Amino acid sequence: MNRDEHYMALSIQMAKETKGQTSPNPSVAALVIHDNQVAGMGVHVKAGEPHAEIHALRMAGQKAEGAEIYVTLEPCSHFGKTPPCAQAIIDAGISRVIIASHDPNPKVAGRGVEMMRQAGIEVKEQVLKEEADRLNHVFFHFIQTSEPYVRLKSAMSLDGKIATSSGESQWITGEEARRDGHQYRHQSDAILVGVNTVLMDNPKLTARIEGGGKNPVRIVLDTNLRTPPSSQIIQSDDAPTWIFTGNQLKEDQLQPFRRFSHVKIIPQKGSKVFVEQVLQYLGEQQLTSLLIEGGGTVADAFVRANKVNETITYLAPKLIGGKHALTPVAGEGIKQLKNVESFEIETFEQLGEDMKIVSVKKEGS
Amino acid sequence: MNRDEHYMALSIQMAKETKGQTSPNPSVAALVIHDNQVAGMGVHVKAGEPHAEIHALRMAGQKAEGAEIYVTLEPCSHFGKTPPCAQAIIDAGISRVIIASHDPNPKVAGRGVEMMRQAGIEVKEQVLKEEADRLNHVFFHFIQTSEPYVRLKSAMSLDGKIATSSGESQWITGEEARRDGHQYRHQSDAILVGVNTVLMDNPKLTARIEGGGKNPVRIVLDTNLRTPPSSQIIQSDDAPTWIFTGNQLKEDQLQPFRRFSHVKIIPQKGSKVFVEQVLQYLGEQQLTSLLIEGGGTVADAFVRANKVNETITYLAPKLIGGKHALTPVAGEGIKQLKNVESFEIETFEQLGEDMKIVSVKKEGS
Repeated sequence: MNRDEHYMALSIQMAKETKGQTSPNPSVAALVIHDNQVAGMGVHVKAGEPHAEIHALRMAGQKAEGAEIYVTLEPCSHFGKTPPCAQAIIDAGISRVIIASHDPNPKVAGRGVEMMRQAGIEVKEQVLKEEADRLNHVFFHFIQTSEPYVRLKSAMSLDGKIATSSGESQWITGEEARRDGHQYRHQSDAILVGVNTVLMDNPKLTARIEGGGKNPVRIVLDTNLRTPPSSQIIQSDDAPTWIFTGNQLKEDQLQPFRRFSHVKIIPQKGSKVFVEQVLQYLGEQQLTSLLIEGGGTVADAFVRANKVNETITYLAPKLIGGKHALTPVAGEGIKQLKNVESFEIETFEQLGEDMKIVSVKKEGS
Repeated sequence: MNRDEHYMALSIQMAKETKGQTSPNPSVAALVIHDNQVAGMGVHVKAGEPHAEIHALRMAGQKAEGAEIYVTLEPCSHFGKTPPCAQAIIDAGISRVIIASHDPNPKVAGRGVEMMRQAGIEVKEQVLKEEADRLNHVFFHFIQTSEPYVRLKSAMSLDGKIATSSGESQWITGEEARRDGHQYRHQSDAILVGVNTVLMDNPKLTARIEGGGKNPVRIVLDTNLRTPPSSQIIQSDDAPTWIFTGNQLKEDQLQPFRRFSHVKIIPQKGSKVFVEQVLQYLGEQQLTSLLIEGGGTVADAFVRANKVNETITYLAPKLIGGKHALTPVAGEGIKQLKNVESFEIETFEQLGEDMKIVSVKKEGS
């Protein structure tokens, strides 16, 4: 690892810590180095607040003059909620800029670099790019498709069961795996289940993690609005609850939900709810990531629509058996192997007694 | 790693290479060290041939006098197919013996050590014992239970499917995983499937590995003898084929099988075939390891009888879906989670695009 990679690795490490808190913006960190000493550092903390570069430059103050700045993502060139960072870097008198990821928006990619080069600054690109890209793959997906990045989370036995044939499912995996699962709620903008999961498990769908979690918007696919007004996601206002339904609802069905200001009923144009339309709507609402947590039928709808970007699988070393025991993806399924999409294993590790395997959709598939 | 561990690690490494070829005997290696130099080495090659210690002592010749011998398993004290190794070690003038595993047979454990100590030899026990025990866990299980060690092998998608809902199963996992699977056939004394697997897939059940494999005895659970005489396991005599049936067979059913000398029909006492009786029979025939490869119903029978000792799971990063798609363990299954046995993850690795996970039954469960 050379000097540039060393400083960039630290920057990426800093940015990683903000994963999930910057949505719909990316996680970004910046590091100002003056005479081989740290002069400033910063991360983007929250949408609407200053970008990472601005924090780092402010901290560096006079020392930014003639210094280097390491940034995990190409500095912006446009006026958004804040002035362009490329200009701030020029104004501060920075002499060298080192960048990992390019701007994912093809319309503006390279413009920040161009601005700075024209101002006489030396710019080095693509330092630890792959690692930095991976850090913001959710954001990149969102920018490029206008849809949230979809994760499918399952907890199953070694023989693929999420419950016994008599319906027992609590708990197949151990405590460590279940705790790990809550991190994904904390990091996601939205969490989605089918109405059957609401009816069977009456879940709260909140992020219960140490030190307090950020609750995702709770999404229910519920064509005929069978969600009981008495269910936890309606009664508790820990997070917004959005219910996608068909267009055949009557006023007396809607009535019981009106008094809950955190609940929104979203009838679709037709009598059915389509995955594609739900994702489009969520993207319009600036929700960049979606966690699918429950219901084999719902999971199957996303799988058949080819809309799953990542799988998170917790695997308990148990054999449950049972022809009629539930599996994570049910429904109609994909009939022919040639139509089954391939993922790539990204990480695998042991968590307590269980395994955790994360895979991501192969590019181009 | 100290000196004794260093030499024992090499011995274990040597013994590992013979896994599967020594059945019904264990894999054992021995190393004679004279003045800190290698004087002799040997492994047990095949049942009926000399034990590892004998090979190593022969190679050492005169240098065995006053030397040390490292043995991965306690030298035997009884006359079996060969004279007792403990006596050969005494006769050779060895001054120090270093042992990893104890004899797994509780009736004779410690006797070899005792014999050598009484002859004035210094004996050090339990050096890298755990590692050496693991090497022979199949043999240890067989000696202690008189039943073969049972491995359940499955190849499934990330959502637990072994075929699509239309029945397509070739291939879910990639070439590397499939090649790895053949190693288990090579290392097993027997391979078992249900008659439905014979009817659907017409498999050969041989070990197709580079350089030639050792074929396991092919076992079919087939209560009503529905195996077609035209099937590959009957027509090809690459390995014995044993078919376990109920006691209700008629002569004209048996007739077509009589001309195949490698085929044995084994009617049970009653009208059904029970896992326990099959395992007992295989143990009596000195088959120490059994690989279960096909049929969710058969797998379920072994799971419910609590007779699976190890699972080998190949996991392809794909989502297939389908409520009616087959899973590795079907049948009735276990109804309550409290009755589900726990395994321990032993190893996990990526093989090509797939994952391989091996788990072993928790001791005492």
